[in-house]
Amino acid sequence: MNLAGGLPDPATYPAEELADIAARAVRDHGPEVLGYSRIDGLPALRDRLAARFSDAHVQLTRENVLVTTAGMQALDLVGKVLLEPSGRITAHSPTYLGAIDAWKPYRPQYRPFTPDGSEDYNQVFSGAQFVYTVPNFSNPSGRLVDVDQRRTMVEAAHLTGTWLVEDDPYGGLYYEGEPLPRLLSLSGERQGPVGNNPYRGPVIYTGTLSKEVAPGLRIGWVIAAPEMIAAMVMAKQGSDMCTSGLTQRIALMAMEAGLAERMQPRILALYRERRDALCQALSDHLAASFTWQKPQGGMFVWAVARDPDLDTDALMRVGLEEGVCITPSSVFDVTGRNHGAMRINFTFNSPERIVEGIKRLAKAVARLSSK
Amino acid sequence: MNLAGGLPDPATYPAEELADIAARAVRDHGPEVLGYSRIDGLPALRDRLAARFSDAHVQLTRENVLVTTAGMQALDLVGKVLLEPSGRITAHSPTYLGAIDAWKPYRPQYRPFTPDGSEDYNQVFSGAQFVYTVPNFSNPSGRLVDVDQRRTMVEAAHLTGTWLVEDDPYGGLYYEGEPLPRLLSLSGERQGPVGNNPYRGPVIYTGTLSKEVAPGLRIGWVIAAPEMIAAMVMAKQGSDMCTSGLTQRIALMAMEAGLAERMQPRILALYRERRDALCQALSDHLAASFTWQKPQGGMFVWAVARDPDLDTDALMRVGLEEGVCITPSSVFDVTGRNHGAMRINFTFNSPERIVEGIKRLAKAVARLSSK
Repeated sequence: MNLAGGLPDPATYPAEELADIAARAVRDHGPEVLGYSRIDGLPALRDRLAARFSDAHVQLTRENVLVTTAGMQALDLVGKVLLEPSGRITAHSPTYLGAIDAWKPYRPQYRPFTPDGSEDYNQVFSGAQFVYTVPNFSNPSGRLVDVDQRRTMVEAAHLTGTWLVEDDPYGGLYYEGEPLPRLLSLSGERQGPVGNNPYRGPVIYTGTLSKEVAPGLRIGWVIAAPEMIAAMVMAKQGSDMCTSGLTQRIALMAMEAGLAERMQPRILALYRERRDALCQALSDHLAASFTWQKPQGGMFVWAVARDPDLDTDALMRVGLEEGVCITPSSVFDVTGRNHGAMRINFTFNSPERIVEGIKRLAKAVARLSSK
Repeated sequence: MNLAGGLPDPATYPAEELADIAARAVRDHGPEVLGYSRIDGLPALRDRLAARFSDAHVQLTRENVLVTTAGMQALDLVGKVLLEPSGRITAHSPTYLGAIDAWKPYRPQYRPFTPDGSEDYNQVFSGAQFVYTVPNFSNPSGRLVDVDQRRTMVEAAHLTGTWLVEDDPYGGLYYEGEPLPRLLSLSGERQGPVGNNPYRGPVIYTGTLSKEVAPGLRIGWVIAAPEMIAAMVMAKQGSDMCTSGLTQRIALMAMEAGLAERMQPRILALYRERRDALCQALSDHLAASFTWQKPQGGMFVWAVARDPDLDTDALMRVGLEEGVCITPSSVFDVTGRNHGAMRINFTFNSPERIVEGIKRLAKAVARLSSK
C-alpha cells in the first residue's frame, strides 16, 4: 500500500482524448511540433496562460510567461537565476522535498518559517535571495495559507524587495470553498491599477499541468516580471534548450478543448471521497497516536505524533514490513531533525486500499510502541 | 538567408508516421506515458539504447544508460555532477556555444585544446574536472578527430583518471566514409574483454534524436559508468524530475519501427548535396578572402579569414544588412577574442538559397574591405 508518493490516480488521465489530440498535433503542426521550439515557449500557449492568470487585479501579457518542462524545472531555474552559493532561502517549514533537491547544488542556507503570522515577515524575508511558499495545500503539510497571511506576505515582499516564489501545483484541488486569491493577484492589486501592465512585482508564480491533466506531458509555467522571465529564458537555454513543441502543442489543444475543466468535477469528487476515507480511517485507527487536520484540498494529510518519542523514520521501516509506505517528516526538513510527523497521500489509492493501509500502519505503530 | 543556426531541414521530419505513433503511444500505453516516468527513463528505451551502443569492444546494460530531455540536458547534468565552482574544463577550441551556456552558472575556467596531437594530452587533461570533446564534425569547426587522436585521448583519460565527455550529436551524419569508432568503444576496448560488464570507464557519451529523427521530441541520452549514471539521476531529479513518458515512448516506437534508419539515406543525400553547394559557392565567391576544409559530415563549414584584420563580428553586422546571417567565431570562444572565422550552416536551406546567401556574404565582405 503506497501512501508515500504524490501521484494522481492514473485512471483520471484522459488517454482517449489525448491520443486524438496528439495525432492531430503532429499531423496539423508537424514542422512546428517536431522542430526546436522557442526557448520561452509556444507563443499561443504563453498568450493563453497570460489570459488564464489575469484577473481584476493583475493583467499579464506573453512577456510575463515562460513555459517550463513541468513545475520542477521552474524551481531549478529559480535556483539558477537567483541563488548565489551559500545564499539564503526563506521557506515554509516543512518544505517540499523536490525544491530542496533542485537547490541542493548551491548549498543554500535555509531560514524556515510558518505562514501563520507568528513572526514578522519583514524580518523573516529580508536578506533572503528569495522566499519559497506553497500557499495552497502545501506539500507536505497540506496547509492552506489564509488571505490575511497572503496579504501580509505580499506586503513584506514588496517592502523588502524580496522575490516571492509562489509554487502552486495544487491550486486546482480545492475540495471545499472558493479558491483564495493568488499571491500573484494580491501583488498585482498592490502594484496599482490594472492598466499598469505588464506585471512587474516580486511574485514568481509557478504552476503545472501535472495535477490537472497529466504529469507525462511535463508542461509547467512561470508567471513573473518580464525581466525575471528574460533571465529565466537565458538559464533555460543552458538547461534543455526548449520544452518539447509536441507536448506544448498538446497542452494548448487540451486547454482549447477545455479538457481540464471537464475533468475537474470528477477528479475533485474522487479525491474528496479519498481524503474523507483517509481521515475517517485515521480517526478509527490512529487517533490515539497522531493528530492531524483534515485538509481542504491537495493530495496529503500531515499527521503529527502525540508521543514526542515516536520516530517516524522508524515507523516507516516497520510500516514497510507491514506492507504500507508513508513519508517521514525528516525528508522535508533541511536539518533532517524533524522525526515526529509523516505525510500520507490520499489521491493515488482507492478508499478501500487507503483504509487497509492505515490499518497496517496502526499495526506498525503498535509494534513500534511495544518495543 | 539564415546560415547561422544549426537546424535540420523541417521537410525531413516524418510527421505522418510520428502522428500515428503518437496516437498509438497514448492509446496503448496511456497510464505509462501520461504519468510520471522513472527518473532514469523508460526501461525498454534504456535497454534499446544499451543494445544500440554495444559493440565488439563495449557491452552495455540498462545501468549504463540515462534518458535525458535532449542533448542539452545531458551537458547540464554533467555540469551539475562534476563542476565545482571555478573548476577547470578542458575543451575543444572553438567550443560548442550550448555547452558554454550550460556550464556558465559554475563560472568554470577553460583550458582550450585542439585534438590534433600538437600537445601532450596527459598534461592537457590532468587537473580538469572533465574534458569536453565532439569527435564527429565538431560544432562549430566541423572537424573530424582521426582514430589515432581518439585512441590517444582515451588513453590519456584512463591514465589521468579524467572524465571524458564525448558529445556526439552528428555521429549519424557521415556523408563519406565509414564512421570512426566512438571514444566509448575505444575505452571499452582498453578496459578489457567484453565479458567485463558493465562499462566502467571514464567516457561519458551523450547523444540525441534531434538530428536523426526530430528535435521536437527532446529525447537524448547519456551512456556512462553506472556510478556516473546514478549521480546524474540524482541531479536530474532536481532538474525536471523525469523526461516526458510520451516522448520517450514515441522515441522507442520510432526506433522499433526503424524510422531513423529509413530516413537516413534521404537525409544524407540531401545534406551532402547542400554541403557541396556551399563549398562550391565558397570557391566561386569567397576563395580570395577565406579558407575552409570541406567537412566529411555534420552541419557546418568553418571558414577562416585570410586577412587577419577581417573581423567576423563586423562581417555579421554588414551581412545582416545584405540579408544573410552567419555565426562569428567570437561566440564559440570563451575568451571572446577569436574574431577571424565564421560558422556557416548548410543543412537548413536549399542549395539555391545557400548560393544566394554566399553571394550576399561576398558583397558584405567587399563592402567591409572597402571601408
